Amino acid sequence: MIKIALIGSGNVAQHLISAFNENAETQIVQVFSRSPFAFDNIPVVHDFNELAEADLYIIAVSDDAIVGISEQLPFEKRLVVHTSGSVPIEVLSSKNRKGVFYPLQTFTKNKKVDFKSIPICLESESKSDLDLLQKVAGSISDQTFKISSEQRKSLHVSAVFVNNFVNHLYKIGNDICAENKVPFDILKPLIRETADKILTLSPNEAQTGPAKRNDNQTIQRHLDFLSDETQKNIYKLLTQSIQNGKDL
Amino acid sequence: MIKIALIGSGNVAQHLISAFNENAETQIVQVFSRSPFAFDNIPVVHDFNELAEADLYIIAVSDDAIVGISEQLPFEKRLVVHTSGSVPIEVLSSKNRKGVFYPLQTFTKNKKVDFKSIPICLESESKSDLDLLQKVAGSISDQTFKISSEQRKSLHVSAVFVNNFVNHLYKIGNDICAENKVPFDILKPLIRETADKILTLSPNEAQTGPAKRNDNQTIQRHLDFLSDETQKNIYKLLTQSIQNGKDL
Repeated sequence: MIKIALIGSGNVAQHLISAFNENAETQIVQVFSRSPFAFDNIPVVHDFNELAEADLYIIAVSDDAIVGISEQLPFEKRLVVHTSGSVPIEVLSSKNRKGVFYPLQTFTKNKKVDFKSIPICLESESKSDLDLLQKVAGSISDQTFKISSEQRKSLHVSAVFVNNFVNHLYKIGNDICAENKVPFDILKPLIRETADKILTLSPNEAQTGPAKRNDNQTIQRHLDFLSDETQKNIYKLLTQSIQNGKDL
Repeated sequence: MIKIALIGSGNVAQHLISAFNENAETQIVQVFSRSPFAFDNIPVVHDFNELAEADLYIIAVSDDAIVGISEQLPFEKRLVVHTSGSVPIEVLSSKNRKGVFYPLQTFTKNKKVDFKSIPICLESESKSDLDLLQKVAGSISDQTFKISSEQRKSLHVSAVFVNNFVNHLYKIGNDICAENKVPFDILKPLIRETADKILTLSPNEAQTGPAKRNDNQTIQRHLDFLSDETQKNIYKLLTQSIQNGKDL
């Protein structure tokens, strides 16, 4: 049984706690939380000095708070990892063994996710620590990857495009529908199919639409239709980018 | 049994033929195709003068070709519809009764779609024609909507954002991964979850990421990381748009 102490009680922390709690290979021995927190019968501490002995300390807090916490930990030479996509491994305090345990998914409060299909990106300073991280990650997910800090940074930037920015395009679609009194629900099957398509086709093969086929008449009609300047600019820039697209 | 003649043999036409072919309420009596075409035992004609009597003529061809075909039809006062998202109903020749039958989905060659969940947007000049179109659409789909040409235009523009542009953001994510030798597959569960999320949350509620939380440090790190000017500009513009986002 691998003993884990979880530092943090936010969104990612909660999803991790419930995933680890459901399997027999790992045990959450403690949760550290600044604010009041309760989860089943897991002991919660509010002072770093009360942290118990564990095989792995997972810091699951906001990016800004990681460095400070790693420096405040009152012990040495133990394995301490963070869960961030964009923070390099080196920023962790050198008094402990450093690592990264980054589950690449968008976590929504109160919406359970199936951890089995969530890729977990791992990084460590030694082979033995990587083995431990792989065992821990493998206990909750079928997809574990050894990823360097530089690669992780590229994944995080990509994730902003395919998640944050994609969601913003959904919002623009929603706004246009609302302005024209059309139910946004009509677009949901299309949104679903667009995401499903690239499970089997490359994004390049899946590309369709007026920009792809250089249908300048339709493009012009769409630009005339849009009244919001920002929407117009996004339409123009993405259309140009599709038209100039290099194939990798 | 409602008799349908299908004019066109491209992607949308083929998906419609196979959907109509599977139900008992409609019958494809003929397909008009300029090029050689075969589908089960459906009669194919290559000359407009050979078009048989039908309750409904569906023109499923590229946007540019719709007007010309509607004018060449050698009969009058029959119900003739097109399947385009962006072409107004008025452009159809006035010698026949006009209508629109627009299935809002992205159709991929050789990838079967479940027509039951595809919204079909209908428009006509009379109540009785709308009744017929609703019967025909209802025979293949559970979702039929009465949508005006102006509303349909707004849907089509929205669809460009949530389908064409979203797919292009997938491509950028794919390009960034390829440049950094990270498998794009790691991002697929995130892509899937991003699309699934807005089935239950509004895009506004679902928005996360550095732009949403005004995390300017991460935004700057991402911009420093990106070397491609177009990618940088898209990142900046979409970030600004999220930060200025008005809530509807």
